[in-house]
Amino acid sequence: MTSTITSVAAPASADPRPSLARAVAPLVEALVADAVALRLKVTRGPRDVRIVDAGIATPGGLEAGRRIAEICLGGLGRVSLGPGGRFSPWDTLVSVSTSDPVLACLGSQYAGWSLASGDFFALGSGPGRATAAVETLFEELGYRDPAEKVALVLETSVVPPAEVVDEIAKQCAVDPSDITLILTPTSSLAGTVQIVSRVLEVALHKAHAIHFPLDQIVDGIGSAPVSPPSPDFLTAMGRTNDAVLYGGDVQLFVRGPADAAKDLAARLPSLASRDYGRPFAEIFNGYDCDFYKVDPLLFSPARVTVTALDHGLSFTAGGFDPILISRSFGG
Amino acid sequence: MTSTITSVAAPASADPRPSLARAVAPLVEALVADAVALRLKVTRGPRDVRIVDAGIATPGGLEAGRRIAEICLGGLGRVSLGPGGRFSPWDTLVSVSTSDPVLACLGSQYAGWSLASGDFFALGSGPGRATAAVETLFEELGYRDPAEKVALVLETSVVPPAEVVDEIAKQCAVDPSDITLILTPTSSLAGTVQIVSRVLEVALHKAHAIHFPLDQIVDGIGSAPVSPPSPDFLTAMGRTNDAVLYGGDVQLFVRGPADAAKDLAARLPSLASRDYGRPFAEIFNGYDCDFYKVDPLLFSPARVTVTALDHGLSFTAGGFDPILISRSFGG
Amino acid sequence: MTSTITSVAAPASADPRPSLARAVAPLVEALVADAVALRLKVTRGPRDVRIVDAGIATPGGLEAGRRIAEICLGGLGRVSLGPGGRFSPWDTLVSVSTSDPVLACLGSQYAGWSLASGDFFALGSGPGRATAAVETLFEELGYRDPAEKVALVLETSVVPPAEVVDEIAKQCAVDPSDITLILTPTSSLAGTVQIVSRVLEVALHKAHAIHFPLDQIVDGIGSAPVSPPSPDFLTAMGRTNDAVLYGGDVQLFVRGPADAAKDLAARLPSLASRDYGRPFAEIFNGYDCDFYKVDPLLFSPARVTVTALDHGLSFTAGGFDPILISRSFGG
Repeated sequence: MTSTITSVAAPASADPRPSLARAVAPLVEALVADAVALRLKVTRGPRDVRIVDAGIATPGGLEAGRRIAEICLGGLGRVSLGPGGRFSPWDTLVSVSTSDPVLACLGSQYAGWSLASGDFFALGSGPGRATAAVETLFEELGYRDPAEKVALVLETSVVPPAEVVDEIAKQCAVDPSDITLILTPTSSLAGTVQIVSRVLEVALHKAHAIHFPLDQIVDGIGSAPVSPPSPDFLTAMGRTNDAVLYGGDVQLFVRGPADAAKDLAARLPSLASRDYGRPFAEIFNGYDCDFYKVDPLLFSPARVTVTALDHGLSFTAGGFDPILISRSFGG
Repeated sequence: MTSTITSVAAPASADPRPSLARAVAPLVEALVADAVALRLKVTRGPRDVRIVDAGIATPGGLEAGRRIAEICLGGLGRVSLGPGGRFSPWDTLVSVSTSDPVLACLGSQYAGWSLASGDFFALGSGPGRATAAVETLFEELGYRDPAEKVALVLETSVVPPAEVVDEIAKQCAVDPSDITLILTPTSSLAGTVQIVSRVLEVALHKAHAIHFPLDQIVDGIGSAPVSPPSPDFLTAMGRTNDAVLYGGDVQLFVRGPADAAKDLAARLPSLASRDYGRPFAEIFNGYDCDFYKVDPLLFSPARVTVTALDHGLSFTAGGFDPILISRSFGG
Repeated sequence: MTSTITSVAAPASADPRPSLARAVAPLVEALVADAVALRLKVTRGPRDVRIVDAGIATPGGLEAGRRIAEICLGGLGRVSLGPGGRFSPWDTLVSVSTSDPVLACLGSQYAGWSLASGDFFALGSGPGRATAAVETLFEELGYRDPAEKVALVLETSVVPPAEVVDEIAKQCAVDPSDITLILTPTSSLAGTVQIVSRVLEVALHKAHAIHFPLDQIVDGIGSAPVSPPSPDFLTAMGRTNDAVLYGGDVQLFVRGPADAAKDLAARLPSLASRDYGRPFAEIFNGYDCDFYKVDPLLFSPARVTVTALDHGLSFTAGGFDPILISRSFGG
């Protein structure tokens, strides 16, 4: 984290807020400086945008993914890889904690900025989203992060065209050469770690989707198994989703009534979705690969514990599905 | 850790000793610099003392607690939060290791400095204790740490009065403005992590209490589950104690006879106390909330392994109580 | 990792490679700067070589071992100690990940440089091996690392004689005063952690020994329990080997045909060796303590999962032996 933090006026709160751009800057520069050791490729793309290739024409790896996941969290989170024992033999768990989960996960990590031009489509993730703040979510967060340099992570296997770079530059009010785009294909090792690290973010996003007040969410921590990548996009995407939906664990700490915490716990796990129960790739195929037909409430951790801080009560719902993880990862 | 370490003459040992104050200084300054991101409040209190509020008028959080725990260890320890699987669904374990456990835990982390004035009472923890060195423990440790800036952690929900600040300044021979007091209420998330991180320290403290020679303790490592906080002080305090007493694990590495190691292992776990077996809040209530009636030998990890380095033999005693953890944390 | 990385021409690959010496330099200097806190002794030995004693005339400890293990990995790896639950009560696992496993483990961590003179014998490990590059392995890796300062880790309990220092200086083309030798006795805590941290390296080394192409190995991650040290060399060595052979877990991610990955998984675990099944100290005694009679293919993790990245298929073989770990560690 940065040692000089400036505050940004926050309409929804009297508290000062950190600048994601300032917190993340040293992590982005370290990623670029260590690119050779991390087996990343740093080049200049259209409009002189800085491109960090994390798995297209270069191997990248698990550690690159771990560091990119911390960049996704806007420099406000820790991502670790370690042995877990939750799903033998898929022993490696990614664990995620932050100093401010709503800001780190929803203000930065959530892949919420739709970037499209011609054949190109990707969802932008990372601290640059809060500089552009084109999503309505930022009004609800009461947060904007004016910055001179922006970083975004794109789950893609192609370099974005000039029109997309122009759009980012315009919305962020920066020069294209001050933009860093980190590209993590779904099938890559770095992409896998970066996606599975969203286990806490999906819980917060679903909490928001079911109208739990974000300013009542004080803290959270989560973990999920690292799925084995596949060169087949659907298989790779299916596995990373299964890692969270059937193998992810999150604990949230919230303010407010105990009933609201209990209700949140009951509704939050993937179990509460009509689409729960089959590997994600099967669900997706069953909807003719139309992402928007999948129940949006499916995207959440397998198990959720909600602790009501004002009452000292905790509520757990959902659970792991080791058989499904075994079928999905091993298949 | 600091890159410039000075030695302090140690009566009980010919070896040089690190300065806790120097080792911890960068961690304290980083905590203050990152206060906004960590959701801490930094202000000036009586006599211009620097106050870091970690959960009174500000949310703080788990990560703030983790960093404060490393400050408690005088900059000589590592504290991690991660998935464990020891007590489902209380999956998050705090793990603690140090480069020098006796100095980090007893010379710094132990809450041994009684600070009282009028209605105010708190036990001071952290590296400032070794600068004041008012406790007889420091004679036994053969350690004092003259310093120009001191940091202490207080488990309290109120700002200490001027008289307490004066007392600290006097005993440490520093100006009050060079004192940093980090306040972590028992009911806060930061407080919870900071307290549960004492799992290794209580083992060392009990070893000392039962007269095992501290200079024979070479190393140690420990872990315990993060209990859910409660706004009720007794419940919160009870749970953090239960996390250690019924869920904590420690391994110590000691010199000396195998019999002494075996005896230490047998006596060290909480199981060896007459008060073992019920949630701490119940025990405490049973003694009319008189802390000094509780068996002091209760305060120790659930399970202890002692490895006798001179013999290559290890001894384990005690064990986890998942049912009690479930009752305590969930109740 | 270093922020300025230079490339070295790599015959076997068009990709730039990091300099291990530059990546490791800040870690070596930090180890020396923190020597007092880590309970290490830094002195000057024959020819003014810098000696870091990590357990001969000084206690050292687990954290010193963890940091030395990261130095062994040439500054390209992360080594963590944490609770695992794999082998109760031996709860502490060491976990290892790197940004480039072949280079970090085989180019640096592997104890492959035979250093002998008179009665002295040790196998050199660490980034200095790639500066000397006297082993044929470096031709296969297509890697050399010219450097002005070198660091080596020696598993020994005596300071090497001047002749050994001269040999290192000559082969590395550096002045003896620019060499740092870190000495970790097998019986020490630092030595134990440093050896058990080789769990990933032994998998890569065996993959190489059975002729799996190293350039097809993209990534890997591993873990193993920390064995309790013993003052008896054979017992200590036996336990560190058992930690890996009967308690180690590794996942490798490889390119190439699925059949080759499947074959690698089948052959890689220790189970596939004719010597598998007894504590290592027994095996070693059975061969009259002649190391070269032990099946070299024994040295590998208990369980291995190989993921074939080009096919999205994974293969697991081997398994843990908790009974043997219990006999070995507890005996």
